[in-house]
Amino acid sequence: MNPGGLGSPPASVSLGHEIYALAERLFPICRSITGDGVRQTLDVLSGHIDLERHEVPTGTQVFDWTIPKEWNIRSASITGPDGQTVVDFADSNLHIVNYSLPFKGILPLEELRPHIHTLPEQPKVIPYRTSYYTPTWGFCAAHDRVANMPDGLYRVEIDAEFKDGSLAYGEYLHRGQTEREFLLSAHICHPSLANDNCSGLALLAALARSLKARETRYSYRFLFAPGTIGALAWLSRNEDRTCLIDHGLVLSCVGDAGSPAYKRSRRGDALVDRAMAHVLGRLAGAKMLDFSPYGYDERQYCSPGFDLPVGMFQRSVHGTFPEYHTSADNLDFIRPEHLEDSFRILTDVIDIIEEDWTPLNLLPKGEPQLGKRGLYAALGGQKSSGATSMSLLWVLNLADGQHSLLSMAERSNLPFKELAAAARLLSEHGLLAAAS
Amino acid sequence: MNPGGLGSPPASVSLGHEIYALAERLFPICRSITGDGVRQTLDVLSGHIDLERHEVPTGTQVFDWTIPKEWNIRSASITGPDGQTVVDFADSNLHIVNYSLPFKGILPLEELRPHIHTLPEQPKVIPYRTSYYTPTWGFCAAHDRVANMPDGLYRVEIDAEFKDGSLAYGEYLHRGQTEREFLLSAHICHPSLANDNCSGLALLAALARSLKARETRYSYRFLFAPGTIGALAWLSRNEDRTCLIDHGLVLSCVGDAGSPAYKRSRRGDALVDRAMAHVLGRLAGAKMLDFSPYGYDERQYCSPGFDLPVGMFQRSVHGTFPEYHTSADNLDFIRPEHLEDSFRILTDVIDIIEEDWTPLNLLPKGEPQLGKRGLYAALGGQKSSGATSMSLLWVLNLADGQHSLLSMAERSNLPFKELAAAARLLSEHGLLAAAS
Amino acid sequence: MNPGGLGSPPASVSLGHEIYALAERLFPICRSITGDGVRQTLDVLSGHIDLERHEVPTGTQVFDWTIPKEWNIRSASITGPDGQTVVDFADSNLHIVNYSLPFKGILPLEELRPHIHTLPEQPKVIPYRTSYYTPTWGFCAAHDRVANMPDGLYRVEIDAEFKDGSLAYGEYLHRGQTEREFLLSAHICHPSLANDNCSGLALLAALARSLKARETRYSYRFLFAPGTIGALAWLSRNEDRTCLIDHGLVLSCVGDAGSPAYKRSRRGDALVDRAMAHVLGRLAGAKMLDFSPYGYDERQYCSPGFDLPVGMFQRSVHGTFPEYHTSADNLDFIRPEHLEDSFRILTDVIDIIEEDWTPLNLLPKGEPQLGKRGLYAALGGQKSSGATSMSLLWVLNLADGQHSLLSMAERSNLPFKELAAAARLLSEHGLLAAAS
Repeated sequence: MNPGGLGSPPASVSLGHEIYALAERLFPICRSITGDGVRQTLDVLSGHIDLERHEVPTGTQVFDWTIPKEWNIRSASITGPDGQTVVDFADSNLHIVNYSLPFKGILPLEELRPHIHTLPEQPKVIPYRTSYYTPTWGFCAAHDRVANMPDGLYRVEIDAEFKDGSLAYGEYLHRGQTEREFLLSAHICHPSLANDNCSGLALLAALARSLKARETRYSYRFLFAPGTIGALAWLSRNEDRTCLIDHGLVLSCVGDAGSPAYKRSRRGDALVDRAMAHVLGRLAGAKMLDFSPYGYDERQYCSPGFDLPVGMFQRSVHGTFPEYHTSADNLDFIRPEHLEDSFRILTDVIDIIEEDWTPLNLLPKGEPQLGKRGLYAALGGQKSSGATSMSLLWVLNLADGQHSLLSMAERSNLPFKELAAAARLLSEHGLLAAAS
Repeated sequence: MNPGGLGSPPASVSLGHEIYALAERLFPICRSITGDGVRQTLDVLSGHIDLERHEVPTGTQVFDWTIPKEWNIRSASITGPDGQTVVDFADSNLHIVNYSLPFKGILPLEELRPHIHTLPEQPKVIPYRTSYYTPTWGFCAAHDRVANMPDGLYRVEIDAEFKDGSLAYGEYLHRGQTEREFLLSAHICHPSLANDNCSGLALLAALARSLKARETRYSYRFLFAPGTIGALAWLSRNEDRTCLIDHGLVLSCVGDAGSPAYKRSRRGDALVDRAMAHVLGRLAGAKMLDFSPYGYDERQYCSPGFDLPVGMFQRSVHGTFPEYHTSADNLDFIRPEHLEDSFRILTDVIDIIEEDWTPLNLLPKGEPQLGKRGLYAALGGQKSSGATSMSLLWVLNLADGQHSLLSMAERSNLPFKELAAAARLLSEHGLLAAAS
Repeated sequence: MNPGGLGSPPASVSLGHEIYALAERLFPICRSITGDGVRQTLDVLSGHIDLERHEVPTGTQVFDWTIPKEWNIRSASITGPDGQTVVDFADSNLHIVNYSLPFKGILPLEELRPHIHTLPEQPKVIPYRTSYYTPTWGFCAAHDRVANMPDGLYRVEIDAEFKDGSLAYGEYLHRGQTEREFLLSAHICHPSLANDNCSGLALLAALARSLKARETRYSYRFLFAPGTIGALAWLSRNEDRTCLIDHGLVLSCVGDAGSPAYKRSRRGDALVDRAMAHVLGRLAGAKMLDFSPYGYDERQYCSPGFDLPVGMFQRSVHGTFPEYHTSADNLDFIRPEHLEDSFRILTDVIDIIEEDWTPLNLLPKGEPQLGKRGLYAALGGQKSSGATSMSLLWVLNLADGQHSLLSMAERSNLPFKELAAAARLLSEHGLLAAAS
């Protein structure tokens, strides 16, 4: 009965499962903005795509910032007066404040307390905290776990290391027919948070792999870099190449059950903004948001000195869901079907950007006679001729050299795909040429 | 009691009845894109206006199209195994597929069946079908009438003729003070469909007649031509004159009880679009629709090689009402009062286009003292001074040489007529001049 | 318990009371477009601000108008057949038609009646009527008071005087760093109407006084002039200075309980329009209205020969509330708290116009590192960083030399004040310069 055959799930399900499986492998790794966790993540991704890897040494100046010392952590725990372990990094890498200083000592509860971060309003989950640029040590814990710690002396041990090392990032370039680039970027610095951003990393890798077999007009650059400092490092090293970037997307939180949401680039009317508006405009519940300078690395790409046409794609909007930046952002929070839905949206956007062109009607005076070319329902007088005929008529009518297919889709409210098919058909019949 | 006097209907009713009476005379004629039905229709219209008549010979190339052979039909019928006439062209000219090939023969039901078109979802009405450019023969019938035809042999006789002849159309030019033109066009190719388009033909003739006595700024060209091929033929023969067309309207389906609807020209902001928006904006239920390349001959006038400022006026939107393209679009479906309402709308639009001008305030610093000129309520302090004073104030305020009266109406939301009256009054008092 | 201390009302209440007290002093004076009432009003205002006073002689031509003879009135009354006083100017200066001719005589009721104006639909209030430019005499009265006057002879006495004199107005200039001006104007010609415009006069004086101590960028011109003819006189005498006016507001009816309302300047997008939109956009119920050429002296300032960027601020929209232009517009109809609310709105608008500037991000590539400057929450990963951080990010992102702080507020939907504070902070840290 199942058209896909017994036992074999339909093709579309397996794509979502593949992306999910990759996210699953990335989840346990303890990442930060520097350190071996990023390198392990790049190792895993290299199993899927041919990553070019970069190391930016500690102390390198990137614009207003300096690459910090490299941070690695082996273990961290708090042991109570009764000898019981209260909090242990081995249980969850969220238990340690990311970039925590090393520390070893025995403290009374009242001195320890300010170093433990909790979420009293969500008492069962561990918060995620970082302190990259302010030297401090600290733990994060479920509020319930640490609320009733007895007075007494606690043994604290944080076996972390700061050293002159480097910040690692990876990139992959799919070469197209031109040097003009589509930048796709995901942050690689978060530890065990599934949606934010194992989902984005895995989706980016899947997209990169899917493009391998495809001849494209644009070159596609996939960037896996630590948030902020990693994006800045890349921009700093590639400043002279940023003028090649015609389109860009930042991906994060792409695997949860929320409706897809897109935040426009700072420009607001870039082609990627319009393509995304077209795709999301046909999905119930999808949201288009105006640019704001808070979020992920679009902050850097859209800073006024670059102002690149880079938007941000996500599902549930970061900061607005209770699982955000907590241990509840785990592998149950993301699902294969949502990852796959995000994948489809992104490939639809890429298709529009690849396939957009500006046709010129070669018989612009009156309509050409479609019937004699077999392009039109032969028997007139019937009520609607259906969407395909409408697509042919719209393309012919707007093919004045001033309208790209995407602008035709915007004006006609017809799907881009139908208009692209109509333009192909009309071209084959010699009715359209490319506007120079 | 009746101010119009006993027995004589008020003037406004008789206009609607006149238009209706003309539609009534046009209704029975079997029209097509060529043939004597069009000529008979032009004969009837010539009784009302001085039509210039044209014949375009079969085989003439008009852009991508060729004038087809001329089609005329004398009779068509299906006779059943029992000798009873099942379908007869004499009952309704919709019974034959328009441009059907001639045919004479005896066929079993299963071979005849594909040649009979019905509307199962509207089983009591005859559909309207054409096959101008695909040679075939066929009938149209009420579904109920032919659903239960017994098996057996049927005699089919279609006495139609194809010959080298010509396509006929008529036009009437009302000469104005300038050569700039307002094109008004209605399709003349539909057989017995009252709203689509006996209504449009009759209304166009009434408009033409009403303009005869009027000195106008623009020249008005009234075109009665077969749909698509007729409009293309006219465009082809008048290509060098199309640059004179400043405004245009296509009329169809203007007699039914639906609210008036206007489809903007491809340009979207032509003066005729704005004038129509102003008039319809004051009528509850009236609709403004964006241009789309599906519809009537605005398709040809708005093709990208012409892009003329031509919109389309109708009442119920074609293709959306059940009577459309069926025998239910009969003389009961149109009413004098709706025809007259359409007439009023069109004359209001013409009035705006005729009377629009751009005044210049000759005392632009502060308000001129209207009171000393008797232009203002003398006793101040009263609550509102009413719309007339508002019109005076708006015209004075916007008469900076950048605003036409129509743009003043758009900004002030006052009726164009009031502003035009105010401008006339102010001109008479020497307060306005025409902006050069 | 009261932080302001027992007995002393909070500072904000006393401001409203101060403005109210001034309106109270202005209320009883019988003003008109000329005459001693205006001079007495200027005397009272001179107790608060250093008014420069002007007299424009009768007969002076101001554009299309002529300064009329000066009108003063001492007494006016109607005495009935029974010797009882029916209507007496001494009870209310609204009882006389403003600019009424003098008259002394004995008339039968039927001859007197047309000279008495009432509001039958509001039978208990005296209407306000003027007849500046049409010579006539008349009274205004509560309808109930005069509806049942017995037949008989009435003695009418209007002791008014017309003479060659002058029209008086006052202005006050607060000099700022530049000659560019902000014009604030209120009409001074209405007699005992509290909201229209004792409220506006008192508020203008309070604003002028509050600016005295402030170093401003713009110069502020406060104009107290009779409606229409006074504004025209000022424009006529200062025609060559109007090019200095960058912003302007007309004030009237600013003390009632209605929500604040602003009518845009004729330009519609002047800085004052945008600043007012920003301030009122944050107040529930506040209304933004498009320009119309009916209202107060914005009619003159926005006439096409000047087209100054002058809007009009009021609370209940003139002409729409039943108290308008009647004796019900009395001192109970205005309240200190509403006067103060209006004052706050106007100072917020002035603050925006004073403090708006266009910054340039000096580190435009990527975000500058706010943390190392102490400008950012040190501990990352927390959910929102709050509006202050958002303001910093927005200012940095939009500081491309194309966005003023106000346009940043419009785009970000953040309060101007927060963005101005952020810009100040960023400037202090050397991150912003002024765009030249």
